[in-house]
Amino acid sequence: MGTEPAPAPRDDRERADRLDAADPLALHRREFAATDEGLVYLDGNSLGRMPAAAASQVRAALEEEWARGLVASWERWVMLPRRVGDAIGQLVGARPGEVLVTDQTSVNLFKLATAAVGVGRPDIVTDDANFPSDRYVLGSVAAAAGGELRVIETDPVDGVSADDVTAALDTGVGLVSHSHVAFRSGALADMGTITAAAAEAGAMTLWDVSHSVGVVPIELRRSGADLAVGCTYKYLNGGPGAPAFVYVRDDLQGRLDQPIRGWWSHDDMFAFASDYAPAPGIDRFATGTPPILSLVAAQAGIAMTARAGLDAIRAKSVSLTSLLIELADRDLAPLGFTVATPRDGERRGSHVALRHRDAYRLTRALRDRDVVIDFRAPDTLRLGVAPLYTTHREVAEAVAVIRDIVVTGSHEAYPHHRAGVT
Amino acid sequence: MGTEPAPAPRDDRERADRLDAADPLALHRREFAATDEGLVYLDGNSLGRMPAAAASQVRAALEEEWARGLVASWERWVMLPRRVGDAIGQLVGARPGEVLVTDQTSVNLFKLATAAVGVGRPDIVTDDANFPSDRYVLGSVAAAAGGELRVIETDPVDGVSADDVTAALDTGVGLVSHSHVAFRSGALADMGTITAAAAEAGAMTLWDVSHSVGVVPIELRRSGADLAVGCTYKYLNGGPGAPAFVYVRDDLQGRLDQPIRGWWSHDDMFAFASDYAPAPGIDRFATGTPPILSLVAAQAGIAMTARAGLDAIRAKSVSLTSLLIELADRDLAPLGFTVATPRDGERRGSHVALRHRDAYRLTRALRDRDVVIDFRAPDTLRLGVAPLYTTHREVAEAVAVIRDIVVTGSHEAYPHHRAGVT
Repeated sequence: MGTEPAPAPRDDRERADRLDAADPLALHRREFAATDEGLVYLDGNSLGRMPAAAASQVRAALEEEWARGLVASWERWVMLPRRVGDAIGQLVGARPGEVLVTDQTSVNLFKLATAAVGVGRPDIVTDDANFPSDRYVLGSVAAAAGGELRVIETDPVDGVSADDVTAALDTGVGLVSHSHVAFRSGALADMGTITAAAAEAGAMTLWDVSHSVGVVPIELRRSGADLAVGCTYKYLNGGPGAPAFVYVRDDLQGRLDQPIRGWWSHDDMFAFASDYAPAPGIDRFATGTPPILSLVAAQAGIAMTARAGLDAIRAKSVSLTSLLIELADRDLAPLGFTVATPRDGERRGSHVALRHRDAYRLTRALRDRDVVIDFRAPDTLRLGVAPLYTTHREVAEAVAVIRDIVVTGSHEAYPHHRAGVT
Repeated sequence: MGTEPAPAPRDDRERADRLDAADPLALHRREFAATDEGLVYLDGNSLGRMPAAAASQVRAALEEEWARGLVASWERWVMLPRRVGDAIGQLVGARPGEVLVTDQTSVNLFKLATAAVGVGRPDIVTDDANFPSDRYVLGSVAAAAGGELRVIETDPVDGVSADDVTAALDTGVGLVSHSHVAFRSGALADMGTITAAAAEAGAMTLWDVSHSVGVVPIELRRSGADLAVGCTYKYLNGGPGAPAFVYVRDDLQGRLDQPIRGWWSHDDMFAFASDYAPAPGIDRFATGTPPILSLVAAQAGIAMTARAGLDAIRAKSVSLTSLLIELADRDLAPLGFTVATPRDGERRGSHVALRHRDAYRLTRALRDRDVVIDFRAPDTLRLGVAPLYTTHREVAEAVAVIRDIVVTGSHEAYPHHRAGVT
């Protein structure tokens, strides 16, 4: 890990190394392409690292399938949205035929939310910790349906609760939509209880699992969830802007109408028929031709996640975030940091938010020390741990480097945050 | 061109070779990755061949940008939709800032059509030669706005005319939307006259240039067009499912509201603000995170097209389709084929439709003779010529092989077309 003296205290290093030595997932780290030596990458919650197999599969798609196979390769490509969808389905507790890879998360949220409120109750419930893009989309969908978006105010650390949702429900609400893991605090919502509360009130549920898929076991069917969307470029390591997915519970597929009637959603897409007839199953929620190279790249990380197993991934995730919180409490709280993520491991996803008034400058200074984390305005540092490649040692190093920067004041040489700049 | 005796008559071969020898674009063929030796690929109207530079740029995006640069590469990637959009803009007669790469064509058509009819006139005019997906999407947009889709019946060869459009217009029509080149017959619509007729009646225009971009000079601004969409995987050789683009004339960008309010359309996307504020310019028509690997791949073909120049490309396209029609008239008409594409070179795009009752079986038989073309149910063969790599010799060979198959009856060993199978 680099040539400079490691800044983490020796006791922490030894403890972290012991945890890493006992890590059943340790071998997966070698399946990722190399990064710069010494890099501590704690931003897999934004863009996951590249599985080496993703590159080789894309190369084959370029050289064999596109260059040589040409249009005949569509016989294989046309099945990818379903095939990769089913692979994701196994990670989210869905049956075959309930998940389809298509479009981007915002487009999918639009399609499913519009379909859901089209059933006749135009108001939508969400919460103020939901991803802003989700709130923008849900707001426009509710308005177009003649309803409104009801935004629950939540605790900035703990996120939305089932009680909050229950209190917001009445017969005007057709849809309840939240992020499974809050993008800022990392709070993990109680999918089962919230879904049950919504169903009790006659509303459908639409979960955004972008920040939980691949790192938290998800049980969409078992929880009774109606609909879900998610992306593949965070903990699934699908690559930059890799296509997103939709989940629609099988009994709902035939009775929801999504508004973007592209030919890939047609019952017989290659008939080029004059009239629209929606596919009976999950294909109904497709639109146009999917970006094949990006879709091919997404397969490797999904397969690796399935091989590693979500129980082992979850156990390591909690171990990593627990260590991070423990060290932050000990070493960073005295320097003005606040842990802004639930302390109960069962109540958080796989990133930890630390608040500090110099968060932006710290993020910049950390990059120059080869520690990559996220900044979220105005004062939040997000440190994501990805159990397939993140080590306990990296967590200990990151905390030590943050401490070193603040103690020495080296971040003060960096400019303050300006709106519009990340 | 292969080891078997070439079936084209010697006179045709010599004439084709003379035309190819004088072709100013001939050198561009070498910029594409190799295909199987002897392959005659006339399906670039469906999926263009792979520029070798596309593969090397994707490899760099994988190995350097994703694997090593990781999340920091977003500083570069975030500009790609605008940058590649501007490169396309130069091919469609747009100004910088009027074209954005985003989503897929059906999604873009939905966004722009919804924005246009949102202005208050809910009916949409299209034609029965428009791509089915466009008709499906436009139909659902009109219905959601409380209007209807008015579908002009057209001549199956000549496509939509300005007179047709004028006759369909009244004060209920907010939008006129057609394909610039008809996907089946190849008819090239008169963009300028139709756009003027729509404007005269107070309707906006939304052109789908998927079958013309990169092969027909397009003058969106000069024609007065309001809106356009198109894909990059046909004559732009962008790769399978490469992302699509939108054109919104600059004076309209600030006053149209598109319905899918993803964070990439926000005025300050990285602020993660609670409230939605649309970007003032073309970014307003973005949605979510674009598929970067597919977007990177699209750049090489766009750049090659710009270098080659659309006037030279168009001249060669007309030369290739003229030769194809001439040989089809001489050698295939006596065998039951009909040319179903305008005979005036100025009135067609870059593919030729031949109708024959055994079209499906012929398409299959041709593939086994290394001639790749498209079948469109029930009876159409589509032969697309892509001037950056298609040769006159290939056109002569294709006609000769079709003739040979029909004369020998070798296609009769193949199964008939069944609905749902391509």
